[in-house]
Amino acid sequence: MRFDIISVLPDLLGSPFAHSILLRAQKKGIAEIVVHNLRDYASNKQKSVDDYPYGGGSGMVMSIEPFARCIETLKAERVYDEVIFMSPDGETFNQTIANELSGKANVMILCGHYKGIDQRIRDLFVTREISIGDYVLSGGELPAAVLVDAIVRLIPGVLNDETSALSDSFQGELLDAPVYTRPADWRGHKVPEVLLSGHEAKINEWRHEQALVRTQQRRPDLLAD
Amino acid sequence: MRFDIISVLPDLLGSPFAHSILLRAQKKGIAEIVVHNLRDYASNKQKSVDDYPYGGGSGMVMSIEPFARCIETLKAERVYDEVIFMSPDGETFNQTIANELSGKANVMILCGHYKGIDQRIRDLFVTREISIGDYVLSGGELPAAVLVDAIVRLIPGVLNDETSALSDSFQGELLDAPVYTRPADWRGHKVPEVLLSGHEAKINEWRHEQALVRTQQRRPDLLAD
Repeated sequence: MRFDIISVLPDLLGSPFAHSILLRAQKKGIAEIVVHNLRDYASNKQKSVDDYPYGGGSGMVMSIEPFARCIETLKAERVYDEVIFMSPDGETFNQTIANELSGKANVMILCGHYKGIDQRIRDLFVTREISIGDYVLSGGELPAAVLVDAIVRLIPGVLNDETSALSDSFQGELLDAPVYTRPADWRGHKVPEVLLSGHEAKINEWRHEQALVRTQQRRPDLLAD
Repeated sequence: MRFDIISVLPDLLGSPFAHSILLRAQKKGIAEIVVHNLRDYASNKQKSVDDYPYGGGSGMVMSIEPFARCIETLKAERVYDEVIFMSPDGETFNQTIANELSGKANVMILCGHYKGIDQRIRDLFVTREISIGDYVLSGGELPAAVLVDAIVRLIPGVLNDETSALSDSFQGELLDAPVYTRPADWRGHKVPEVLLSGHEAKINEWRHEQALVRTQQRRPDLLAD
């Protein structure tokens, strides 16, 4: 799967894509992540990519021309399944959308900045607008990294232990049960007895109960669905 | 405001904190962001920070000892308002929580990895568990970066134009109206006439109407609250 990310701050995305699971996925050739500097597509001498908003008001607005040139350049090279704009007013990202997108071949992601991007970019080029949550961030770069991370780990072959992704919270309808590791006693705080019993059926029962209790306490909305 | 982030992949957070608004906030001395390598607090020779889960199952669990040592070292240096664990089963992050946390002085953020962290860390040290959304990521690093970004930009003096943060989506009850910048005509796609009129009252009216329509179409839940 290939991701083309268009950003005015491509270096901001350097380290998140160079570690851990995203690095491994790229090394294995399962994921290709290319970050494009929007300024390379600016046509004026100053390489400016934004301008004052029509109608006045604070903040700058990202111009249509550099985005259009970059998107059209990329589209001439391959077919894109989606052109995604990361935006707080997009549809709220969740595991269902991550699953769906993990089956795509080529996805383009546009990162906004400042007060937003010219509405015509959204109207003419964007096929999907996604928000990672109800909060405002400085730009679309971190949301793009979150999106890519959530998607890539679902692609078969990326995780070492494939059952690991399948048993995550939100893949089923329950949150995860508490987990424990050594030591069994830490300053008097002990691991629940049942987990040390070696009795698989009882352990599974305990985990299911705990997952149910945790979901009821923290996210009753997940059970109501 | 000071952030202490505890991570097994501190380098993953290098570039997000070294750009844009987060860089500026640190240079101005308004925000201090310190990333601690959890492995520096591992007591065994292998510097291991995880172990097999009690009761069996796939994935590794992060051990209590390194986290305890790191947290206790930091707590000996200053008082923390919150010790936050980034977790998909925590309370869902939103702008209200961002506003609240932006008034704190010292916040510690724990990043989990693998199948999770020993439950006793959560029980004994964590004061607040926060999720950035209903999806599973490779670790708590990107969520920590998202949290810090959303909070720091709200601290007075961080944004150049203070009204800029106040007029963001989610600070009010409506999503933002569409924005436009030059050119007024791009390949025949024109900016709405009213924005070029110079008539401030009409522009404000149009923006309010558009914000209302967009909120009704995309996020009727925000109006119902």
